[in-house]
Amino acid sequence: MAREIRLNAFQMNTPGHSWPGLWRHPRDRSDGFARLDFWTDLARLAERGLLDGIFIADTFGLHDVYLGGADAALAAGAQVPIHDPALVISAMAAVTRHLGFGLTTSVAYEHPYILARRFSTLDHLTNGRIGWNIVTGFLDSAARAMGEAGALDHDERYARAEDYLALVYKLWEESWEDGAVLRDKARGIYADPAKVHAIRHDGPYFRSEAVHLCEPSPQRTPVLYQAGTSPAGKRFAARHAECVFINGHTRSSVARTVSDLRRQATEAGRDPSDLKVFLGATVIAAASEAEARDLVEEYRPYVDPAGILALMSGRLGVDLGAVGLDEPLTGIESNGVRSIVEALTRTDPNRTWTPRDLTRFAGAAGRGPFIVGSAVQVADELQDWADETDIDGFNLTRIVFPETLEAVVDLVVPELQSRGAFKTSYRDGPFREKLFGHARGRLPASHPAKRGF
Amino acid sequence: MAREIRLNAFQMNTPGHSWPGLWRHPRDRSDGFARLDFWTDLARLAERGLLDGIFIADTFGLHDVYLGGADAALAAGAQVPIHDPALVISAMAAVTRHLGFGLTTSVAYEHPYILARRFSTLDHLTNGRIGWNIVTGFLDSAARAMGEAGALDHDERYARAEDYLALVYKLWEESWEDGAVLRDKARGIYADPAKVHAIRHDGPYFRSEAVHLCEPSPQRTPVLYQAGTSPAGKRFAARHAECVFINGHTRSSVARTVSDLRRQATEAGRDPSDLKVFLGATVIAAASEAEARDLVEEYRPYVDPAGILALMSGRLGVDLGAVGLDEPLTGIESNGVRSIVEALTRTDPNRTWTPRDLTRFAGAAGRGPFIVGSAVQVADELQDWADETDIDGFNLTRIVFPETLEAVVDLVVPELQSRGAFKTSYRDGPFREKLFGHARGRLPASHPAKRGF
Repeated sequence: MAREIRLNAFQMNTPGHSWPGLWRHPRDRSDGFARLDFWTDLARLAERGLLDGIFIADTFGLHDVYLGGADAALAAGAQVPIHDPALVISAMAAVTRHLGFGLTTSVAYEHPYILARRFSTLDHLTNGRIGWNIVTGFLDSAARAMGEAGALDHDERYARAEDYLALVYKLWEESWEDGAVLRDKARGIYADPAKVHAIRHDGPYFRSEAVHLCEPSPQRTPVLYQAGTSPAGKRFAARHAECVFINGHTRSSVARTVSDLRRQATEAGRDPSDLKVFLGATVIAAASEAEARDLVEEYRPYVDPAGILALMSGRLGVDLGAVGLDEPLTGIESNGVRSIVEALTRTDPNRTWTPRDLTRFAGAAGRGPFIVGSAVQVADELQDWADETDIDGFNLTRIVFPETLEAVVDLVVPELQSRGAFKTSYRDGPFREKLFGHARGRLPASHPAKRGF
Repeated sequence: MAREIRLNAFQMNTPGHSWPGLWRHPRDRSDGFARLDFWTDLARLAERGLLDGIFIADTFGLHDVYLGGADAALAAGAQVPIHDPALVISAMAAVTRHLGFGLTTSVAYEHPYILARRFSTLDHLTNGRIGWNIVTGFLDSAARAMGEAGALDHDERYARAEDYLALVYKLWEESWEDGAVLRDKARGIYADPAKVHAIRHDGPYFRSEAVHLCEPSPQRTPVLYQAGTSPAGKRFAARHAECVFINGHTRSSVARTVSDLRRQATEAGRDPSDLKVFLGATVIAAASEAEARDLVEEYRPYVDPAGILALMSGRLGVDLGAVGLDEPLTGIESNGVRSIVEALTRTDPNRTWTPRDLTRFAGAAGRGPFIVGSAVQVADELQDWADETDIDGFNLTRIVFPETLEAVVDLVVPELQSRGAFKTSYRDGPFREKLFGHARGRLPASHPAKRGF
């Protein structure tokens, strides 16, 4: 039996996400991101392809480090404008039955009581198909938008996130007992007050004394996603996450990350298979290798290098415009840049690496595998990556929407199915059950939400 | 030409809203509130009846003052559970074309930067059909849920709301100029950075320095609703609100409130007709008066008196269980109770008023007109109320869903149309244009958002 491959569509409520500039391609619909039909069409397509879910990234700020401002990001439509991702879910849920939704929300700027209600409401509306990608917020621009001086330092962000989770777990898991909601028309009792409890939380960052506002939803706690790959991020993921989204350039580094995550999950008392790991990937498939390669060349001129550098500068917190496009990256003093150059140097030790190299449509550092070919070739690559790295699946970047995703759905999925490496129908039940199997609609007893802190 | 009557459906994401207990009626669907089809069916029905909008109330806390706790509210399903209303909008938008959505959000617990993004996103997704009902948050239970000791005092809540609005107005109206978004595929420019501005706000309660995260939406600022009827609330409404939702028992008191609001709007430099006033009303229509009266008797036993007292106690901040159900209300020391008793006494000076009187399905104090009859009778009443009070329309409480709203749509609306008192089709354009007329998709120059503070 072949190893099962899982696929998510990686999206953001913005014109330019992973590959800014492609909204300019004549057949691309990304500049319609603000309208409902973009999302309902995406959802129908993803469900037609039996994808596990749509994973929607988010930030609360602009990428305004590159060249000292946000001009490049604005001109490229590079993750700006960026609209609220939570609000597109119910329309997508209305046109699908099984597709999951991984919604990114930061723990930096909203009170846990509000977030807990949002996810419970969505879990009800989607009939148990919601996941939460927990991010801690890293952009100084977002902090300034919220009236703060700057983002918290990295380790404190994770300490705050731990406190945040402790509180939302109580709200989701402990406030309303199973059986609290009677809807007893004869006796006239909606909920049994004896089975509804005010939770009390008095943590280092958050306090609350309240009944959760929502009755228990199919999953109670949404499927928990996390995407941090720093040491603190990995520790956090190993403790809390059920799905981890990683990026990685080489199979060996991805394999190391995956084994590290699974080892840490084991150390945290969890089953290592309770962690599904998804790798970001750019996949361009066509009827033949030649046609796929032609598509790459056709798309390439539309990718906006300044937009990519704006995003990378924001993420790294260092201005990649500090040296010229074709000057050595080593001219920039930054640990982040240094580790990218080291990774690139391992792929070709004799080259001088420049900002331009970071923007190449194929194979740029830190942007994950770039997989191009016929259905057979793409399926081979996906299976090889999964076999060699122990990942569970891929997060497919938005390229030219919808055609690149249609090619995956119409060509790659059937090929993987013919190899027994892809499901041929959705499993019934909530999102967590679809991911982890029978009778797993709720968190397992080994998860910290169930064990207390 | 008859005066135009406008209708909204008044809703809440909860089993028991204005009349808790009716979820127990065999034909009522309110206990399905957590599911999508409740909302999409409601939206289709409201649009079939050419209603202006669905107005969704909200709170962030339980009504836990009655008898010293939330037991009565929980047992009655009286505004608990209460799910997030923002998340049902996009699904309703997907099945309608013209219907507006008035979404309640408090300014008490979320940063204005986050709220501004939510409403801009919804304005895009609905193609300009979103309104914001601004509430300041009054429940101590909500404050405790957010880790605070209690709700702010009344006047400070409005001072905070003023600061909140000053900031969101800047984000909606000033951050992105018209013409900032070029989507110029040939030149490769999504937005012109010269036309996108970071707003700066340093107010008594809120600070922000940021570009708004969303490109300009059809209306920019959502249609602004407000529902406060205290002196501070009315001042706030007269300054900011475009639609005001009021409750009132007698025509004379409603007429006074309306003229007071319009006078204050004039004093604030606005046109008094720039304020649309909607009165909460319970309307039960049938083919004949006798059938309508039978429905009232049929529904009455399902209304939950303890649920109503729980809601009123929470709203008044005083325990209406402090005296027995049939003891005089005058035994309770409270300004709020005193003014209710005064209003009731004007309707019948020789009676002793008790908590039970507050829970009567017909004609209870402070619960607005209760209008029962054939289509002709109901239309007469609605027109008389509007003519005598100068209101613009009604917010129809949820009674037995969907049948009581179906009766309005199928019987009352055609009757009003035949009298020339109800539109026969929707006007094109965004929600604000539908309410206020041609070329009014955005706020007028006389509104404080446009004049600065």
